[in-house]
Amino acid sequence: MSDCIFCKIVSGQIPCTRVHETADCLAFLDIGPLAPGHTLLIPKSHVRDITEASPELVATLSREIPTLSRAILGATGATGLNILQNTGPSSGQVVMHLHIHLIPRLEGDSLGFRWNAGSYAAGQADAMRDRIIAALQHTA
Amino acid sequence: MSDCIFCKIVSGQIPCTRVHETADCLAFLDIGPLAPGHTLLIPKSHVRDITEASPELVATLSREIPTLSRAILGATGATGLNILQNTGPSSGQVVMHLHIHLIPRLEGDSLGFRWNAGSYAAGQADAMRDRIIAALQHTA
Repeated sequence: MSDCIFCKIVSGQIPCTRVHETADCLAFLDIGPLAPGHTLLIPKSHVRDITEASPELVATLSREIPTLSRAILGATGATGLNILQNTGPSSGQVVMHLHIHLIPRLEGDSLGFRWNAGSYAAGQADAMRDRIIAALQHTA
Repeated sequence: MSDCIFCKIVSGQIPCTRVHETADCLAFLDIGPLAPGHTLLIPKSHVRDITEASPELVATLSREIPTLSRAILGATGATGLNILQNTGPSSGQVVMHLHIHLIPRLEGDSLGFRWNAGSYAAGQADAMRDRIIAALQHTA
């Protein structure tokens, strides 16, 4: 897409600090890192988010994650990683080209979560399960 | 593994609210949901985290994400999703069996990020890239 910043990175119109590349995907350093080594993994083809991606594209992209994760951990000395894919503006997605964040973590670093775990009232989990299963039958 | 809660869910020793299953993976509702419909996707085989998983296993697991994402969005009415895989205790991983969170999002809900984006000083991004590329050559 002509106005997509990640498509411009793929085409070379905008530079990036590339760490890995295959025929179908590109990994480069996030220019606004949450920690040194914070990397973005994207498909070269334009797709807005994971709900619009084919299972095959997501599999192709994800296949790179284990090796890339080990390399980022090795290069940074981080003790953990958050691998995060935001789908839709309410999730924090800013660039509307599918991308996976690989964020190195150390104890006490600058990334954090507000993680207010709730619970289901009696019957509500089963009702939600039934709605998801019904939706799967319509979206498969 | 005999002491792994997710292996016990896979074997049926511990119940779950199952929403999807294939020969290799299982998806069920998180019992401490950040939002109704918060789902966990796991491989049936025990693997601690994504750094220990094979590319093929991660591809097999990830192939389920697009359809599952659309179904969760459809069932919950959420406007977005965070798809999150925590690797290592410093990242927030609690259960040491690879799992991917699919967390429905709505504006103003109970999940949030402390996202303090930084920047690289001159030369530091290139130096980090070189370390990751070197590590890739050793870990591939």
